[in-house]
Amino acid sequence: MTPNQYTPEEPITSIATALAPAALGIVRLSGKGCIELVSKVFSRPKALLEAPGNTLVYGWLLDTPGRIDEVMLAVYRAPKSFTGEDMVEIFCHGGPAVVMAVQNLMLKSGFRQANRGEYTFRAFINGKTDLTRAEAVKEIIDSHTDVSRSHAAGRLAGSLFEEIDSIKKLIIDTLAAIEVEIEYPEDEETIADSFDRADIELAARRLQTLADSWKGEKLYQDGARVVLAGRTNAGKSSLFNAILKEERAIVSDIEGTTRDWLESWASINGIPVRLFDTAGLRETSDLIEAQGVEISRSLVHDADLVLYLIDGIVGMNDEDRQFIEKCTEPLIVVYTKSDKGGVLGAEPLGEGVASNEVRAQGETSPLTVKISAKTGAGLSGLFSKIFDLLTSNLGSAGTSGDTAGAGFTAAFAGHSSERPQAGLGSARQKEAVSQALESVRHALISADDNYTLDAVVQDLEDALDSLGEVTGDVTPDDVLSSIFANFCVGK
Amino acid sequence: MTPNQYTPEEPITSIATALAPAALGIVRLSGKGCIELVSKVFSRPKALLEAPGNTLVYGWLLDTPGRIDEVMLAVYRAPKSFTGEDMVEIFCHGGPAVVMAVQNLMLKSGFRQANRGEYTFRAFINGKTDLTRAEAVKEIIDSHTDVSRSHAAGRLAGSLFEEIDSIKKLIIDTLAAIEVEIEYPEDEETIADSFDRADIELAARRLQTLADSWKGEKLYQDGARVVLAGRTNAGKSSLFNAILKEERAIVSDIEGTTRDWLESWASINGIPVRLFDTAGLRETSDLIEAQGVEISRSLVHDADLVLYLIDGIVGMNDEDRQFIEKCTEPLIVVYTKSDKGGVLGAEPLGEGVASNEVRAQGETSPLTVKISAKTGAGLSGLFSKIFDLLTSNLGSAGTSGDTAGAGFTAAFAGHSSERPQAGLGSARQKEAVSQALESVRHALISADDNYTLDAVVQDLEDALDSLGEVTGDVTPDDVLSSIFANFCVGK
Repeated sequence: MTPNQYTPEEPITSIATALAPAALGIVRLSGKGCIELVSKVFSRPKALLEAPGNTLVYGWLLDTPGRIDEVMLAVYRAPKSFTGEDMVEIFCHGGPAVVMAVQNLMLKSGFRQANRGEYTFRAFINGKTDLTRAEAVKEIIDSHTDVSRSHAAGRLAGSLFEEIDSIKKLIIDTLAAIEVEIEYPEDEETIADSFDRADIELAARRLQTLADSWKGEKLYQDGARVVLAGRTNAGKSSLFNAILKEERAIVSDIEGTTRDWLESWASINGIPVRLFDTAGLRETSDLIEAQGVEISRSLVHDADLVLYLIDGIVGMNDEDRQFIEKCTEPLIVVYTKSDKGGVLGAEPLGEGVASNEVRAQGETSPLTVKISAKTGAGLSGLFSKIFDLLTSNLGSAGTSGDTAGAGFTAAFAGHSSERPQAGLGSARQKEAVSQALESVRHALISADDNYTLDAVVQDLEDALDSLGEVTGDVTPDDVLSSIFANFCVGK
Repeated sequence: MTPNQYTPEEPITSIATALAPAALGIVRLSGKGCIELVSKVFSRPKALLEAPGNTLVYGWLLDTPGRIDEVMLAVYRAPKSFTGEDMVEIFCHGGPAVVMAVQNLMLKSGFRQANRGEYTFRAFINGKTDLTRAEAVKEIIDSHTDVSRSHAAGRLAGSLFEEIDSIKKLIIDTLAAIEVEIEYPEDEETIADSFDRADIELAARRLQTLADSWKGEKLYQDGARVVLAGRTNAGKSSLFNAILKEERAIVSDIEGTTRDWLESWASINGIPVRLFDTAGLRETSDLIEAQGVEISRSLVHDADLVLYLIDGIVGMNDEDRQFIEKCTEPLIVVYTKSDKGGVLGAEPLGEGVASNEVRAQGETSPLTVKISAKTGAGLSGLFSKIFDLLTSNLGSAGTSGDTAGAGFTAAFAGHSSERPQAGLGSARQKEAVSQALESVRHALISADDNYTLDAVVQDLEDALDSLGEVTGDVTPDDVLSSIFANFCVGK
């Protein structure tokens, strides 16, 4: 959506539920006169027109000739609605043909098809939400695991907005003190005296914590790519299925069923994991050199983590050693079929392998797991190791690593408190917060170097501008457009 | 759902929208105390508890600890609700993880997962709907085209219920007259005199029309299987894609992408058509004999219609003639690539082929069509021929073929009137209506043969019982169970 496509108050419509057979579906309407427009194709126009806000009206949507569907209309009157405009939500039956017919009737009745995110855009324009909450709407819809959802819910409830607001207050208070100093300068005082260093240092630390949070939040939003590799009959398909059976992520995606690989989403201790089992690796005896494993190789190359499976009965051979040595991605060696004996799984690896076997930062002992996909033995241990490996470098990001690490632990361990520590919800927010952090640090340097108060003021005002971008107080039109263009239609 | 699973008033919950990323989702609740149960995990319990029926309450669903989602609750108070019980519909964000989290919160809060069709079942038990409308709910959700939807909407609005009711009145009036005759017999009168033959004959004709309607309604519900066959490069994939481009049905199904065939739903002049393009037929030069065409053969065998494609530039060869001769299913010969000249498409077929080429009942001229998938030329003509062929035997079904044919034309031509002619919506209804028809006809015979009035009364009462089964006045528990067990969860 570009700003010129934004036509305030124009009646818009869109299907707000997934287009698949279901009990109920929703078609959403917003804009000036939308209640009147619907009343013209509704069996009980008077009841609808007289309905107070936040009430439900039963009736039929009618076409000429014919009936479309038996519906319940939720009526919202401006400004008490999601968008702040008059709104109607049509609750109809959930079949795709029904929902499409309702939508088509609305398009015939004077509504325009809504652009992506246009409802939330209007909510933002009308002051019903800020940008952090608006982005959280998209985030909560797209979340793949319950932990991801709870993080988004925190931002939707305003956790990030409030943290930004609180940091802004620290800066504003300092600015106010400096303004007093500029207008009524006292003798003998230096710049540093009128500059509340503690407040600005606190602001910097909190901004750093926020900036550090993004890496972890991004992991929970986008997920990690985990690829199963190994020789034929190593047990890749069994493990693939066992993981999905226990930990299938809350998504509706049809599993990938191309001829080249299988993929599906799983939830590994709350982290959304896109799990790949490559047919190329499955069906080719020579793993590295063979033709036709290009795709498999590129999947391994793009992986955040490789699970290299070895048949626990057969044990490791040169081919396995070669793969493990050459693989530059983080890797866990998984010995399978522990239920069938699989004592080989306990065998120490060859010397040449040990150093390459483990990729986790700072780890020294080999990451080797024994499992049985059949009995489920060892799976929870495997999941813990996957979780540790995927999150191992989150705590040490940035300069105030300890704080970020603690923040990560508190926010991501899956034991969310009523108001979890605020974290960032988008790359856009990360950029603006980093910009604010830079300005705040520059203010500290300026003060240390006894620059003019004006220079410090400029730094702090820059920081406020950057924070204003996070919440949407000062956000250019093109930035707004790109934010809402990523939404689904109906939001 | 079996009757013993039906626990009246027990609070039940289910997700009512499709589990896929979308702006909004709905979790549905019904049963005694359901408003109180939700209030315990809602941010504004007082507002919810005090909310009148048919109103909307804004707030947050809360878990311990944490927030689940920002929601709008639709409150319905018994008996003014879909089920006739207290109900709450939770409108939450539409991501699968959100909807699942809301559902899980409800399960933790004292709700039981609803069985398939349990809401509609309760609506039926509580007298909020009859069986014809209840079955129409399932039908409208499952409808694949707009014509199918409009038929279901008619039944949902009561068109079938009213027709059945009106037929019942004819029978009841006759029964009343006979009762008078039995209690106050007049001299000189015969059975036939007290028996209003015209009314019962009218009832029989209308029951016949209803029974005849099922074949057509079934076509619009289930759709027809149309298989594309022909030699490699005959243009099957191009036609497959061209049909889907112009006439994709309103469904969300992912196209079949097995290695053996492609399939997708299309809407051919309102008829849902499941379109198959077989890889076996595509990639095997010897169509009939080759190994690996077993699946293709079985697809052709199960087809309601075969489109046999011939490259209009290359023309027909022996292989084509052999297929067309051996094919016992209804078949249309489609000459492709008419944009590239394709004069061969106009060539008359060999004599041995002409008789087999056309399978449409009563047709004498060959069903041959020339098309260009590239330009779209000839496609609408092809669609008309497919429509004609699929509906050709609908008008002649049963004994009163003319009436049924006219009814079919009126109801199915896509120009539905405000209250279209009633048609049947399920095989169950067809069976009961046929039973009623048989009883009514028997009553006519009994009267003709001057049986006792008691015998006629018995026949007419049997007819009423059968009609009562259609609407659910008298329907055994096991029948009820099987009806609602076919519903989706949430309805």
